Amino acid sequence: MTARHQNADEQPPRVRDVPIGIDATGHRRETDSMGAVEVPADRYWGAQTQRSLIHFSIGNDRMPKAVYHAYGYVKKAAALVNGREGRLPRWKADLIAHVADEVIHGALDDHFPLYVWQTGSGTQSNMNVNEVISNRAIQLVGGTLGSKTPVHPNDHVNMGQSSNDTFPTAMHIAAVRQIDEHLLPEVRELRQAMEAKSRDWWEIVKIGRTHLEDAVPLSVGQEWSGYAAQLSGAIDRIEATLPDLHQLAVGGTAVGTGLNAPEGFGEHVAQEIAQLTGYPFRTAANSFAAQGSLDAIVAASAGLRALAVPLMKIANDLRWLASGPRCGISELALPANEPGSSIMPGKVNPTQCEAMVMVCVQVLAEDSAVAFAGSQGNFELNAMRPVIINNFLHSARILADAGEKLRVYCIEGADLHREQIDAYLARSLMLVTALSPEIGYDKASRIAHKADDEGTTLREAALATGYITAQDFDRIVDPKKMVNLNH
Amino acid sequence: MTARHQNADEQPPRVRDVPIGIDATGHRRETDSMGAVEVPADRYWGAQTQRSLIHFSIGNDRMPKAVYHAYGYVKKAAALVNGREGRLPRWKADLIAHVADEVIHGALDDHFPLYVWQTGSGTQSNMNVNEVISNRAIQLVGGTLGSKTPVHPNDHVNMGQSSNDTFPTAMHIAAVRQIDEHLLPEVRELRQAMEAKSRDWWEIVKIGRTHLEDAVPLSVGQEWSGYAAQLSGAIDRIEATLPDLHQLAVGGTAVGTGLNAPEGFGEHVAQEIAQLTGYPFRTAANSFAAQGSLDAIVAASAGLRALAVPLMKIANDLRWLASGPRCGISELALPANEPGSSIMPGKVNPTQCEAMVMVCVQVLAEDSAVAFAGSQGNFELNAMRPVIINNFLHSARILADAGEKLRVYCIEGADLHREQIDAYLARSLMLVTALSPEIGYDKASRIAHKADDEGTTLREAALATGYITAQDFDRIVDPKKMVNLNH
Amino acid sequence: MTARHQNADEQPPRVRDVPIGIDATGHRRETDSMGAVEVPADRYWGAQTQRSLIHFSIGNDRMPKAVYHAYGYVKKAAALVNGREGRLPRWKADLIAHVADEVIHGALDDHFPLYVWQTGSGTQSNMNVNEVISNRAIQLVGGTLGSKTPVHPNDHVNMGQSSNDTFPTAMHIAAVRQIDEHLLPEVRELRQAMEAKSRDWWEIVKIGRTHLEDAVPLSVGQEWSGYAAQLSGAIDRIEATLPDLHQLAVGGTAVGTGLNAPEGFGEHVAQEIAQLTGYPFRTAANSFAAQGSLDAIVAASAGLRALAVPLMKIANDLRWLASGPRCGISELALPANEPGSSIMPGKVNPTQCEAMVMVCVQVLAEDSAVAFAGSQGNFELNAMRPVIINNFLHSARILADAGEKLRVYCIEGADLHREQIDAYLARSLMLVTALSPEIGYDKASRIAHKADDEGTTLREAALATGYITAQDFDRIVDPKKMVNLNH
Amino acid sequence: MTARHQNADEQPPRVRDVPIGIDATGHRRETDSMGAVEVPADRYWGAQTQRSLIHFSIGNDRMPKAVYHAYGYVKKAAALVNGREGRLPRWKADLIAHVADEVIHGALDDHFPLYVWQTGSGTQSNMNVNEVISNRAIQLVGGTLGSKTPVHPNDHVNMGQSSNDTFPTAMHIAAVRQIDEHLLPEVRELRQAMEAKSRDWWEIVKIGRTHLEDAVPLSVGQEWSGYAAQLSGAIDRIEATLPDLHQLAVGGTAVGTGLNAPEGFGEHVAQEIAQLTGYPFRTAANSFAAQGSLDAIVAASAGLRALAVPLMKIANDLRWLASGPRCGISELALPANEPGSSIMPGKVNPTQCEAMVMVCVQVLAEDSAVAFAGSQGNFELNAMRPVIINNFLHSARILADAGEKLRVYCIEGADLHREQIDAYLARSLMLVTALSPEIGYDKASRIAHKADDEGTTLREAALATGYITAQDFDRIVDPKKMVNLNH
Repeated sequence: MTARHQNADEQPPRVRDVPIGIDATGHRRETDSMGAVEVPADRYWGAQTQRSLIHFSIGNDRMPKAVYHAYGYVKKAAALVNGREGRLPRWKADLIAHVADEVIHGALDDHFPLYVWQTGSGTQSNMNVNEVISNRAIQLVGGTLGSKTPVHPNDHVNMGQSSNDTFPTAMHIAAVRQIDEHLLPEVRELRQAMEAKSRDWWEIVKIGRTHLEDAVPLSVGQEWSGYAAQLSGAIDRIEATLPDLHQLAVGGTAVGTGLNAPEGFGEHVAQEIAQLTGYPFRTAANSFAAQGSLDAIVAASAGLRALAVPLMKIANDLRWLASGPRCGISELALPANEPGSSIMPGKVNPTQCEAMVMVCVQVLAEDSAVAFAGSQGNFELNAMRPVIINNFLHSARILADAGEKLRVYCIEGADLHREQIDAYLARSLMLVTALSPEIGYDKASRIAHKADDEGTTLREAALATGYITAQDFDRIVDPKKMVNLNH
Repeated sequence: MTARHQNADEQPPRVRDVPIGIDATGHRRETDSMGAVEVPADRYWGAQTQRSLIHFSIGNDRMPKAVYHAYGYVKKAAALVNGREGRLPRWKADLIAHVADEVIHGALDDHFPLYVWQTGSGTQSNMNVNEVISNRAIQLVGGTLGSKTPVHPNDHVNMGQSSNDTFPTAMHIAAVRQIDEHLLPEVRELRQAMEAKSRDWWEIVKIGRTHLEDAVPLSVGQEWSGYAAQLSGAIDRIEATLPDLHQLAVGGTAVGTGLNAPEGFGEHVAQEIAQLTGYPFRTAANSFAAQGSLDAIVAASAGLRALAVPLMKIANDLRWLASGPRCGISELALPANEPGSSIMPGKVNPTQCEAMVMVCVQVLAEDSAVAFAGSQGNFELNAMRPVIINNFLHSARILADAGEKLRVYCIEGADLHREQIDAYLARSLMLVTALSPEIGYDKASRIAHKADDEGTTLREAALATGYITAQDFDRIVDPKKMVNLNH
Repeated sequence: MTARHQNADEQPPRVRDVPIGIDATGHRRETDSMGAVEVPADRYWGAQTQRSLIHFSIGNDRMPKAVYHAYGYVKKAAALVNGREGRLPRWKADLIAHVADEVIHGALDDHFPLYVWQTGSGTQSNMNVNEVISNRAIQLVGGTLGSKTPVHPNDHVNMGQSSNDTFPTAMHIAAVRQIDEHLLPEVRELRQAMEAKSRDWWEIVKIGRTHLEDAVPLSVGQEWSGYAAQLSGAIDRIEATLPDLHQLAVGGTAVGTGLNAPEGFGEHVAQEIAQLTGYPFRTAANSFAAQGSLDAIVAASAGLRALAVPLMKIANDLRWLASGPRCGISELALPANEPGSSIMPGKVNPTQCEAMVMVCVQVLAEDSAVAFAGSQGNFELNAMRPVIINNFLHSARILADAGEKLRVYCIEGADLHREQIDAYLARSLMLVTALSPEIGYDKASRIAHKADDEGTTLREAALATGYITAQDFDRIVDPKKMVNLNH
Repeated sequence: MTARHQNADEQPPRVRDVPIGIDATGHRRETDSMGAVEVPADRYWGAQTQRSLIHFSIGNDRMPKAVYHAYGYVKKAAALVNGREGRLPRWKADLIAHVADEVIHGALDDHFPLYVWQTGSGTQSNMNVNEVISNRAIQLVGGTLGSKTPVHPNDHVNMGQSSNDTFPTAMHIAAVRQIDEHLLPEVRELRQAMEAKSRDWWEIVKIGRTHLEDAVPLSVGQEWSGYAAQLSGAIDRIEATLPDLHQLAVGGTAVGTGLNAPEGFGEHVAQEIAQLTGYPFRTAANSFAAQGSLDAIVAASAGLRALAVPLMKIANDLRWLASGPRCGISELALPANEPGSSIMPGKVNPTQCEAMVMVCVQVLAEDSAVAFAGSQGNFELNAMRPVIINNFLHSARILADAGEKLRVYCIEGADLHREQIDAYLARSLMLVTALSPEIGYDKASRIAHKADDEGTTLREAALATGYITAQDFDRIVDPKKMVNLNH
């Protein structure tokens, strides 16, 4: 394919070193296929962005910047491939790549103002990127903003591309980066903090609780090893979603057939993106599925949920174990970070746990939005992309941040109320369980009920029944033996 | 009750006319019961706000400003009641009320920086308000910022209050205002736009569709009357949630017993808030339920859902009816607001419908977060308030905004493709239904199947069967008679 | 309208007294517009039911019998109206009404085998009813099963009706009956049981808990009054959904226009249903909305959720308050209904609370299915009716049953551990709050922190600071005074 | 460990060949640690089952039989291991294993009557199994039912086990079997049916649709390859959840420490289960996580959702493509399985698609119940097991069944309306896209808008603009070239 409408004789203009920004006030006339629109003179965007800004000012939810940064990689990679393969003059490809770098690094963030609530394909954000790169490139070579010359938003920046393949491509890139660079590092650190506590407290025996009721003992370290293991499981589940996210739709263009993209374009662009980002991106196995569905992101969202579910359990455990100080369970001492009450002096609350629990509720809800939206595709497009990527990136972000805060301001400074732990252990009736293999479940039951009814210790009740000798009781009912620290 | 720790002899200081803002750089030392903290010198907030800012920088979700504006009413009302009843010196009550007015009007918005993810009671946002009012009041009388003199954040601004009763009070006020001032007006306008279309198109007969399959006719106006009626139902359902939102927790203080608030305080404050806002707020019937649960907001969120559900159906109908232009249903012409594709020239998409559909998905998800969170209270407090109010206000806002955009940029400019509508009507086989009462269902079925199999018109098939005469056919099978426009 | 295909000269046959049941084995040939089908010879259903049975054997979820009982009312009412107005011979109308009574009373339940997963309109269940009534009527007059003579399933039993208007009508009838006859009575009894406990325990002062942390006191009765008030709120919210459920779609026939139903038919049938059932049913204000949406049921489902949300909170409170017996909060003694553990002898668990909590989770999920499905209508029909009514009726049923079980096996036998309650109250530090109005929040904080740090009583710490005299302390810090039992 | 309370001298009794069933009427007295209970004389269950039946008759949701069959494996494996290692006399181990086989094969299903809504640990279902095996074993050796001799439900059948470790073990076994034996085979067959259609229709070019609007062409086969690929993705995602389900909690006993189970017991039982079932079951890496959470099942439920999401998209596509017959898109002909309407003769509806869509909505909701419940664990137990396993198995079942029905009654008999497909292709304006690389996006836009405005063909409009010659137009705008069938 050759781009015939391009002037092959175009001479490379000089690229000047102009800082980002347009020194102008008032408005500038920009055009698209529907006509002319006034845009703020100090913004790089064009007519389509402006139309979207007007038509979709709904709430204050903006398309996440991470999507634009990811789009920068797409535009850069496509330009480099187009340049290398002769469809774009080399200087033009390099110019686009240069501006795309500015996009990647966030230097043009102020020029991506669009709302989440827009066209379901993300076309308006794609065109926002195309328009900004076009005008910024034009500025760099001294052209006229809005002229689309020598860099046209559709014909050059978007060459070989459609929003339909590139927007999900950018979604995947943004998701992978968010997971790998922010979320997973934080969760791993949180797990390590849990593991450290587990090791520190490995031999401290405490009463277990099932159904909220007193059960047999385990060690505090064992309990926390469960938390760490839950986080390990969540990490594994999140990591398992990455390979599907590494598959990119780019190359399918409008409906998956690759119309207007040359053979191999998708593969080459994916390779280029892989090289630029350092992630093993590749072309999606089936471009029709990749554009008609968002199944990979729905699955990745389930990965986030797989983290929120255990974090909610853990955060709840922590606040219940720390409940009190004098009228609760009070085994655990969490750091006192802030005064807890505007009316009750001296009150301290498990606020980090509460924030985490709320974050988890939010993530579960956002995940349900992602799944619902994922089910609503039609034909060659799922037109629910903005709501999906916004929820996904938001969930990943608040999980990462809340995980960090929980670690720093709650876990790392947590301590134990040893006396309380020991007192519970001493008075629990469920140690009777150790007698079962010796005297049978039924006799053991009678001992437990007797102690409960009469308010005695387990030992007193056991000996009173005559089912067991004092010597045997003391040998068998030993909490330290019951926890199996090698388990 | 008298506030004994107050100096009854305090002389009223002069209140100066100082514009909002602190002309200082660097940091200021503020204290709370846990000690001292450095805060930015140009901010009014104190130690507790600063602690929260540090401990909870999770994502970028900030407590909605509407909550603070609502809190302004609470603080003003409480101060006026405390002043009137002699617990606060009159000048101090008036000073607090004056600053509370600044809060109400948003003039102090920049001083409420806290995150949604914080303590589950909202205490930190309450203290943010208390601290800001304290320091702003101190500034107005020429005192020392951070000195808590002569206006103490807890003892004076928070007098007779707890976060536990005032935060849900502010939630209710914010919710009512958002519903009444923003959401309902927009939904009513949208309904009117639907009704106008219904009237305009009342007599235009079209084919009906059930199961997506051709059915018997109705008029376009009838179809749109259904949309308007759905919106009427939604409006009714939202309005029905207001009386419960008018019940305020204020007066219950820490756990619902009203400790440290005088008898009647809650009632008086509620009356004052009613007078200040113009809404019929009153004291909650049971303060323990009002603080231990958030059932009224959960129900109000179901009201928002009751709007999102029909809006999703309507927006989907609109985009399907407008599908095409040449390969879809194409009965409806929606305004062409923006170029629809970065690669397909001339493409126009039903973007307003898509935005609305995404908004509805989001609202359903946020509603599920509200319900989930609503179920997670414990004992005297539901510590999920921030996540609930944030989702509620967000949902209400995007529904209102998306409703406005849909009306202005989609509904009002919608038109019909009359030829297409007529063509469908002429060729449909389901008009055979009108023959059923005459010839019975079974014979009518045979006619329909015959026409379908042979690709003929219904009339041709009917006459060929001999079940009906041409004259009777023409008399009975008349779409205009079949729609019952008086229905 | 006259039903011309009917033989006006038909002589009324004798209606014989034949018990329900067909004394036959093997199969019988039944037909519909698509041809013949073999059905079990001992069943009344016809070809369409049989086709559905074959095509939709998915899981084991059957359309709830309550839907068929409700359909009995629809068929009876329609027959009576058609008979009264001369469209059906009187004897035929009475015959249909007679069999419809058998349907209403469940006597024909075994002949309604269809799955929930079927056509989205519920047509197959409507035809199941039509076919069964037809054949049962034929049997009663000695006709030939499957002959559709003298009672035709479509032309007579379904006269003036479509599934599109009658299925949602039956849904509303079934929902109203389930709510009014089963759910609300159980919830009211549960509330009464809560109120009785609240009265019994009104003066027993206990420590309050917010954020799971010790707070200021309230009485046990006050706490339970909050539970009762939450249930009252839920009852109100459920009741508020009834008026919309009283609006019936019947009369709209296929697409809402009332084609093939005479003027006033819907109103007359609704009146008849109202008389038969004793509920104030009436015709829906807008038939297009009534058939294109299921908004009223979605709202009613939100009513069920409004019950599940507080029940989850209450059940969780109960099990936490009862946690122990020796290592938990242990203020509350729940009945010991079953051995709690297969391995731990003597263990007793809060199983009724656990069952209720699981029921609530299920109801929240089913409610989300209802809302999702409610959003998925298209044009003149929401083809999600079976999944909606199945979830709705199931949720209502398990809430009612679980409510009854919780009351009988948990609430009514609940008791208090007075010593534990008193011990908590005696040792709590948050009683310091009562000092705040006297000495200010800051000094009160110092006392609380001092007691906490030094492990002393509040009184010791208070006196040590010198902020308050012993006499004043004893006067002010009196839990009984702090709970305001008139509140 | 030796089981001292066992009589080592017990002589092996003769095991008789007694068919299942108890020839008795009325009631039998059974006992547990709380006393005596009357149970139906013809049932094997004991006191604890009977108590649960009475206390939890909530709705009609019974614990799925698959859970009991899975429990059969657990009991058999434990008995064999206990026998082999000398803790149980060999004959007793074999006897338990023998009855466990009856459980596995469903022969004792009628003796497992318990409700889903019961204790959250599943203890009552575990005890139901223990009691039934005990009494059935006693019957086989001619003992006295209810005597617990010589096979005691707790001491022998439950030896080395707790509900807390065995119930999640049974959940995992049941889930794996349901996935592997029912769900995946059906989904694979469905995918193959999709692939077959994709191959058959590979070269049939049709118009693509994005945003429901006409887009550029693709082949029908390509479109269906997308469906097949979505199913492949779902299969992969479901399979990826199996390794975690293969990890069993057994061996942790009451709280994860393995109290009362010998060293290595969990590993040996897991190995035995692996051998009995043929699946690679093994011991969970961390028993505290395995019992305190249900994260693996939550993740597996996300796998089910990963199937429901694409199935909903596919089923929706199918019914839209088949919409009509004369007033819809009507590209696809689905089999006419049943009459579609009780009032509209000859109507046929996409009922299989509707059933599938409803199933998918249900699955999404049930998955949200699973996730919610998964988040609600406390300390050493997640007491939400019954609600989780019931939803999981139900979702898996209805997905499998609906998939089969969709394949057999919808996909396999689907056909194309070739004329309609060709007609759409011929009239679409979006073929203009192919001109973009040649003449640029802007000129191509003008052509498309011109054709749309003037109602001409694309070719007419293109030539009229003079942007392209007829020869070039015909060369470039060739749908067959535009679809890239090698893609």
